[in-house]
Amino acid sequence: MTPALATFHLKHLDALENAYQRVLDEHGYSGVLLYSGHARQHFGDDQTASFATYGHFLHWVPLPGIEHGWLLIRPGQPPLLHWYAPQDFWHLTPELPDEPWVERFRIESVTEPGPPRLPSGRFAVLGDVEADVATALGAECNPEALTIALDELRVRKSDYEVACLREANAQAWAGHRAAREAFDAGAAELDIQLAYLAASRQRESAVPYQNIVGVNHHAGVLHYQHYDIQPVRKRYSLLVDAGHRHHGYCADITRTWAGCDASDTFGALIDGVTRLQRRLIASLGPGQSFVALHERMHWELGHLLASQELVSCSADAAVAQGITYAFCPHGLGHLLGIQVHDVAGRRRADGTPLPPPAGYPALRLTRELVSGMVLTVEPGCYVIPMLLAPLREGAVGRDIDWDAVEALAPHGGIRIEDNVLITTEGHDDLTPAV
Amino acid sequence: MTPALATFHLKHLDALENAYQRVLDEHGYSGVLLYSGHARQHFGDDQTASFATYGHFLHWVPLPGIEHGWLLIRPGQPPLLHWYAPQDFWHLTPELPDEPWVERFRIESVTEPGPPRLPSGRFAVLGDVEADVATALGAECNPEALTIALDELRVRKSDYEVACLREANAQAWAGHRAAREAFDAGAAELDIQLAYLAASRQRESAVPYQNIVGVNHHAGVLHYQHYDIQPVRKRYSLLVDAGHRHHGYCADITRTWAGCDASDTFGALIDGVTRLQRRLIASLGPGQSFVALHERMHWELGHLLASQELVSCSADAAVAQGITYAFCPHGLGHLLGIQVHDVAGRRRADGTPLPPPAGYPALRLTRELVSGMVLTVEPGCYVIPMLLAPLREGAVGRDIDWDAVEALAPHGGIRIEDNVLITTEGHDDLTPAV
Repeated sequence: MTPALATFHLKHLDALENAYQRVLDEHGYSGVLLYSGHARQHFGDDQTASFATYGHFLHWVPLPGIEHGWLLIRPGQPPLLHWYAPQDFWHLTPELPDEPWVERFRIESVTEPGPPRLPSGRFAVLGDVEADVATALGAECNPEALTIALDELRVRKSDYEVACLREANAQAWAGHRAAREAFDAGAAELDIQLAYLAASRQRESAVPYQNIVGVNHHAGVLHYQHYDIQPVRKRYSLLVDAGHRHHGYCADITRTWAGCDASDTFGALIDGVTRLQRRLIASLGPGQSFVALHERMHWELGHLLASQELVSCSADAAVAQGITYAFCPHGLGHLLGIQVHDVAGRRRADGTPLPPPAGYPALRLTRELVSGMVLTVEPGCYVIPMLLAPLREGAVGRDIDWDAVEALAPHGGIRIEDNVLITTEGHDDLTPAV
Repeated sequence: MTPALATFHLKHLDALENAYQRVLDEHGYSGVLLYSGHARQHFGDDQTASFATYGHFLHWVPLPGIEHGWLLIRPGQPPLLHWYAPQDFWHLTPELPDEPWVERFRIESVTEPGPPRLPSGRFAVLGDVEADVATALGAECNPEALTIALDELRVRKSDYEVACLREANAQAWAGHRAAREAFDAGAAELDIQLAYLAASRQRESAVPYQNIVGVNHHAGVLHYQHYDIQPVRKRYSLLVDAGHRHHGYCADITRTWAGCDASDTFGALIDGVTRLQRRLIASLGPGQSFVALHERMHWELGHLLASQELVSCSADAAVAQGITYAFCPHGLGHLLGIQVHDVAGRRRADGTPLPPPAGYPALRLTRELVSGMVLTVEPGCYVIPMLLAPLREGAVGRDIDWDAVEALAPHGGIRIEDNVLITTEGHDDLTPAV
């Protein structure tokens, strides 16, 4: 942690202590015990799955990957961290870093896993714990109302959190540059992924979400989950959706590149989606409805499809007939923070549910924008046979140039995604410019 | 799958059908339903942890990574595979390969996850399922006696399994060569790991266990779990313990290399541990006690420590006083197959427990060797301060040259590991020669 970030972090902790005090008072708790969680073994095996430390724990303790940690928060008391440091020659025992926050905590180093005893009072335990563990502690296990209230504290980012998200973006960006270079050099998906990891200085199990590295038609599979080990013969496209964690805070950037065998239309569509995304970002500010922005993305996408002569109807008709949905079935974006799809995107500030519109079930952010939010803006345009096929059979099919769609299909699709902070004045794009 | 491997695989299935029929008859079951398992979400998040398909499912179906698969085995019937292929444009839907085994199975493609209905009779469900799922099916959930009996079918490998293990070794070996080259070029642990993955053509989440890439003193942390992103200034040593999966079958190879700043003693110890390992492998054959081999490893290690003047007592005294244990607290090896620490290593052939000797609690293979077993042979020699410190304070400390130990400490340690098949005549080392 740089000295500047450490200073931000202390202020972040000050604000967090006040906010937790308020929430605990409002909900009638003497305190809350946050569990980091721990990696789980594969069934019938002694090897473990990958692991992500619980978000509310990371909100205080800037150490992603920590297991078997317990953090007790009580109003008016320093946070009490049970630090699991076993006598274990099999593994490298974690060490507390030499950072200012450690002085603000009361640290109890323990050699056995398991929760601390709780003082008398009404307590809640939050995290990946069994109900009987909470019962043995005399505490409530993951009460929903308290969880929702604490989620809400993560919606508006502190200066510390914004600095972490900005740094995560800078690291991820180095990876994106390396990925593009590897693609241009003819690398297979696996090698593009490894080039990304090398340049962004991280291992696969530490990324905030599994990087999407889609070459050619794989770029049209929204959450494409493999890395082919063979390079392709014809290079139409590369879509890389990949991030980085900095003290647990996630970058989530997507870029799409035309390969040497790409069509002119595909290049024009990349250009069009990029300009569309810049316009949407330029309009961001507090008070806006993200649902309305999502709908505007569809209208702009309709225009783009018409301008490239993929559809022959108007933008309005393309939206109304579900054509733009078939070309882009995912949401315009989501909240970003300690989790890549951060908490509370579909709730009002008072915690009541705010479901997505019926026509856009995948939209993860439905609330009004407020300053301090960090969100992704990620319009896309894809050839997804499963969604286009039904259109072909109906009347709407006459508005689509199927030859043009088929020529586009080997390119898969396009997504352009930045991470943007909503400020009191407007917005601040945390993703480095090209 | 090559045609030769496919032919082996069909014979493997023949033998498996007969063996399952026998076990199911003996235990009074009409059949058994094997569940592949599926990836689990991180707590409070929508991202999933890494996943390993259940071993008994992979024993039949050569597709590691498959989720939501159910396989029903009934004597006299073809295996019935519920193949989960959802209508899902978010992910690339898995496709059955064009391989001969598919013709031997009855395949039912399903778009919803969940188990098939069971015919009448006594059935067991094995795998990562909740008890209430089994109850709803009218089946027993993971009955221990049946699981143990099916585990035993994995102890002696078929020709198909040996071929897979040999191929996994060849792929892993390519990784080890690349790792050494990256180290010699001054790479950081992360880059050595990425070089390993690139050369062995695999992603981190597909390796059979998390690769250990330990530079300098990290080579002395037995299950060192990180990849430093900074290169070291002085290069004493590199220990790489890393594998590969081929149709689910695991390689598990370790090599240790001296860096440009290594001491002569460290080079001599690598040479000594390598020759020790070759002698142990040369003696392998059916009918031998692996516990006795483990004890012989300690005696040989005592000799090696004495020959390098790290200890001044005899080899017998070094073993008896626990000196060799402090230098090598792990077991000589373990069974290897679909899991890196394969099932049934600590059981007799009749399923009764066969715990490790009191002095060697980490020994994972305690049974007599029989032909068809594949096991690792992995002697080691480490400087582990936590284990050496207590010796220093006692009388035994006078038998150890502490200056020599301290000079060795920055090198961490040494492990040399091959994967060996026990044959009717003796053995066959599956790991390529240097």
